[in-house]
Amino acid sequence: MSNWLWLIEWDTPTHGHIKGVKRVVYRTRSKYQDIIVLETTEFGRLLVLDGKTQSSEFDEYIYHEALVHSAMLLHGNPRNVLILGGGEGATAREVLKYSSVSRAVMVDIDEEVVRVCREYLSFMNEGVFNDKRLNLIIGDALDYVFNTSESFDVVIADLSDPIEAGPSYKLYTLEFYKRISEILGDNGVFVTQATSPTNTPKTHAIIYSTIRRVFKYATYYHVFIPSFSAMWGYVIASNTRNPLELKPEDIDYLLRRHNINTRFYDSKAHEHMFSIPKNLRALIESETRVATMDNPVYMPA
Amino acid sequence: MSNWLWLIEWDTPTHGHIKGVKRVVYRTRSKYQDIIVLETTEFGRLLVLDGKTQSSEFDEYIYHEALVHSAMLLHGNPRNVLILGGGEGATAREVLKYSSVSRAVMVDIDEEVVRVCREYLSFMNEGVFNDKRLNLIIGDALDYVFNTSESFDVVIADLSDPIEAGPSYKLYTLEFYKRISEILGDNGVFVTQATSPTNTPKTHAIIYSTIRRVFKYATYYHVFIPSFSAMWGYVIASNTRNPLELKPEDIDYLLRRHNINTRFYDSKAHEHMFSIPKNLRALIESETRVATMDNPVYMPA
Amino acid sequence: MSNWLWLIEWDTPTHGHIKGVKRVVYRTRSKYQDIIVLETTEFGRLLVLDGKTQSSEFDEYIYHEALVHSAMLLHGNPRNVLILGGGEGATAREVLKYSSVSRAVMVDIDEEVVRVCREYLSFMNEGVFNDKRLNLIIGDALDYVFNTSESFDVVIADLSDPIEAGPSYKLYTLEFYKRISEILGDNGVFVTQATSPTNTPKTHAIIYSTIRRVFKYATYYHVFIPSFSAMWGYVIASNTRNPLELKPEDIDYLLRRHNINTRFYDSKAHEHMFSIPKNLRALIESETRVATMDNPVYMPA
Amino acid sequence: MSNWLWLIEWDTPTHGHIKGVKRVVYRTRSKYQDIIVLETTEFGRLLVLDGKTQSSEFDEYIYHEALVHSAMLLHGNPRNVLILGGGEGATAREVLKYSSVSRAVMVDIDEEVVRVCREYLSFMNEGVFNDKRLNLIIGDALDYVFNTSESFDVVIADLSDPIEAGPSYKLYTLEFYKRISEILGDNGVFVTQATSPTNTPKTHAIIYSTIRRVFKYATYYHVFIPSFSAMWGYVIASNTRNPLELKPEDIDYLLRRHNINTRFYDSKAHEHMFSIPKNLRALIESETRVATMDNPVYMPA
Repeated sequence: MSNWLWLIEWDTPTHGHIKGVKRVVYRTRSKYQDIIVLETTEFGRLLVLDGKTQSSEFDEYIYHEALVHSAMLLHGNPRNVLILGGGEGATAREVLKYSSVSRAVMVDIDEEVVRVCREYLSFMNEGVFNDKRLNLIIGDALDYVFNTSESFDVVIADLSDPIEAGPSYKLYTLEFYKRISEILGDNGVFVTQATSPTNTPKTHAIIYSTIRRVFKYATYYHVFIPSFSAMWGYVIASNTRNPLELKPEDIDYLLRRHNINTRFYDSKAHEHMFSIPKNLRALIESETRVATMDNPVYMPA
Repeated sequence: MSNWLWLIEWDTPTHGHIKGVKRVVYRTRSKYQDIIVLETTEFGRLLVLDGKTQSSEFDEYIYHEALVHSAMLLHGNPRNVLILGGGEGATAREVLKYSSVSRAVMVDIDEEVVRVCREYLSFMNEGVFNDKRLNLIIGDALDYVFNTSESFDVVIADLSDPIEAGPSYKLYTLEFYKRISEILGDNGVFVTQATSPTNTPKTHAIIYSTIRRVFKYATYYHVFIPSFSAMWGYVIASNTRNPLELKPEDIDYLLRRHNINTRFYDSKAHEHMFSIPKNLRALIESETRVATMDNPVYMPA
Repeated sequence: MSNWLWLIEWDTPTHGHIKGVKRVVYRTRSKYQDIIVLETTEFGRLLVLDGKTQSSEFDEYIYHEALVHSAMLLHGNPRNVLILGGGEGATAREVLKYSSVSRAVMVDIDEEVVRVCREYLSFMNEGVFNDKRLNLIIGDALDYVFNTSESFDVVIADLSDPIEAGPSYKLYTLEFYKRISEILGDNGVFVTQATSPTNTPKTHAIIYSTIRRVFKYATYYHVFIPSFSAMWGYVIASNTRNPLELKPEDIDYLLRRHNINTRFYDSKAHEHMFSIPKNLRALIESETRVATMDNPVYMPA
Repeated sequence: MSNWLWLIEWDTPTHGHIKGVKRVVYRTRSKYQDIIVLETTEFGRLLVLDGKTQSSEFDEYIYHEALVHSAMLLHGNPRNVLILGGGEGATAREVLKYSSVSRAVMVDIDEEVVRVCREYLSFMNEGVFNDKRLNLIIGDALDYVFNTSESFDVVIADLSDPIEAGPSYKLYTLEFYKRISEILGDNGVFVTQATSPTNTPKTHAIIYSTIRRVFKYATYYHVFIPSFSAMWGYVIASNTRNPLELKPEDIDYLLRRHNINTRFYDSKAHEHMFSIPKNLRALIESETRVATMDNPVYMPA
């Protein structure tokens, strides 16, 4: 049977991707965004926010394992973890795999996303929202971060991209990162999704360029996400621990010690993500712009 | 100004990519295939054979450097090199950067591709076709390989994908690889493009599974090519040299010693390409099928 | 807000139409076909069977009024009407506007289409399925026509196109039309949808060419349907009444006499539909092929 | 062989059409617009200005015959004809079929369009530009009309649509039509293309609503153009001759008397075009807005 219903996504006005849609499982509009859950041929269920693929059933583990585990292992003994965004629950799922974690605070602005993901994308959050260690707060991550008096071992920013019209661009600024630095505990580690280094290399580079002004150590890393048809970027930072000293050869040992099962992430995956080819290093490291509240970075920069 | 002319490519019947086309620079039909040169917004000039992007101006160096340099450096002192396919000239361009190379034989079946690339995509082959060390043979790579009495230090297969209707699928079989093994000289190294591990993982895995039956050492490696919107795969093999013993930390030294300039390939790129995440390793290494002349692998397998 | 979900329909492999989809209202698969109800930006609700637009909320009245009224008025006093297909209910809706009609038999093969249209497209059939004059039979129109002992004043074929893989192509054959001719009462009139004269002119022409072998009078007529992006064709036939003698100037009078309200159909619309430009007349009337059970016409012919 | 190069045109942001492109015959950018000549599968050669199909090899005769002949026949003995726009030459081709015409002035702003059409679309203008009766002026139609001291029997506006960013919207205003009325000779007739009554009904209606303020008689008429996937609209007007008095039954006689050969236009085509169904009449005639230089109509209105 042929396909006739399609999702068309545009990385740029002249580069798009077409995915065959078998079924629209659910569609709603929250206060913040258009939320669609699709059943696709290639990627299983797909969460699409404002027309942009966020997670697919078949490869969300790549994005989420890549986001969480390097930061958790770099800290070594994370107990108190803060997740900004992450409404799907899959970031929390990875965090809660660590028995050392006694408390995970998750702050997402859109209650509807959480509800829809629980109902229609439960493969991403089975057991998560019932885990007593999880404290889910529906609210603005910016407010939370500036008002909290707690400190955290690991802070994970699993946010939507810094679109001009969107609610997230302030969460990619110098002032915000300074505040993150203040709420990190001893040996605290921060990690953020950082847009695609292949679709929007300048945005990615400015995020890195901004974070390294704040933290003693900061490193970018990349991985290919099939449902995004692109490499995806992250930045990891700390004031005490150098991410580059997390040796690939130790990763498998550390995962075993923490008793963590993964599908994507291991020593080789870590090495792959942190070894950035010459052309991308040159492009990213030549960027000197810094995003501030007054002069933020919007995607595409 | 908006765009209204588009190239639509399909990885599968329900996963496609759309590229804005500014200009059709040239179009012809050779004995073997439909040849188009496009000027695109995102990727500069694009060579498209039978509707499939082969190389783009903005990122062809990634594909070609990834194909050539690991094999050349693994051998260490390549003098006699055989290129199968490679009509664009860019594989030869990378090979001829080595002053140790005294002779490069390039066998491409389609004279028209060579002519079109010389005329419209000269950035891929400047100086190459005038280099006296290059011996360009228009002919069938299969015939050449089975009939040659020469031996080669490095054999590079830069061929079109093993499509059922296409001319290349016999060049991805056990019999062919056995013959390659025979025409390799001492310490000879073979490398082949091996389709996309993300679009057609089974095809990629069968190519690897077939090659490792023939050679003492065989390894797959991957890199993201933006104009393909996908990871691309290669397999490198040898009977005497283990590709995994080519230490990333030595690559930069070796490139300097051979006086090779690259844009993409260096120690970090090598490490990135050869460190394959857990999910892909599992998928590829579980494949046991072997492609033969009687029972070839067609893409998608 | 931009659109990201699309229906793509192909008239031919190289001519397609794209419609923005706001919502998938309902989707199911019946024994016979894939049934989708979409909410679109341009055309309101859309019924799509096997990927092909059947009716849109904003213009279904054009298709259905064009199908029904010329035949009803040509007869003059229709009491017993047979509708083949027409599961949406809109053809029956137009038929039942005539107070002269005491009985309308509607034979549709797909109960699911009827159910879905009643539930999600009630604007097409309000009151229709509760009208006691309507006798809805779920079954094969071919069987019904060959087995009935009744005769009808007007027979209306509102069938899916004669696709090779589909269930309808036998309902566009000489044998079928001969049987229709037999079950028509005195002054009986037959009308059928006859595919698009602009998309598939040969199929349209063969349907006409076949019908005129059977009936004393037969005429084709056309109207533009926006949601089809094409002209649509019909053939009307009778053994006693010449459709061309239904004078446009009389239509408004006859509609008033029957107390029929329409949105599209009137004297001018009738004149428009039955006045076929020179190029199309030449194309249609030069066709001599005849579709039979053994040698049917498939679309595109 | 599959197709991979496509033209995508949008009637609205959520209704588009896709045409398979075999070859880009020629592309250039003039002072005024992007000019492309494509070879397509469905429609032969296609002239595309700023992304919008203007004329196709397979159906341009429908558009041009519909534009020209009703006006010429309504006048009855046209000698001096003014064509505004019409750079393709096909409108002049139809006009020059009349041996009564001793002089045709054609004013097109874009010399490049004329050159490209002569070179690559000669089927539209064979012999036309060498006909001594044709006076081709490269210039602004607005200037010409306001500055000429000549009078014309027939004025034909074959202009691009009234886009806000485009050069033509002033040629769809009350002031312009008043000036046209002044330069018409005795029994003079004016006809203009008037956008699509199905894609942009309000724009079409405002053009009509504006013209009927100026002329004693004004009528709209429509025809389906396959390569536009839409009905196309025209408005014909005169101060002395009522277009509705041009009886369909006389058209064939008049064409013969003038010795005019047509492929589309004849009595039936005329009747078809001038018989507008109820829904469209209601929509068009309810429009009361008038376009002026200060308050022009832009498409879509």
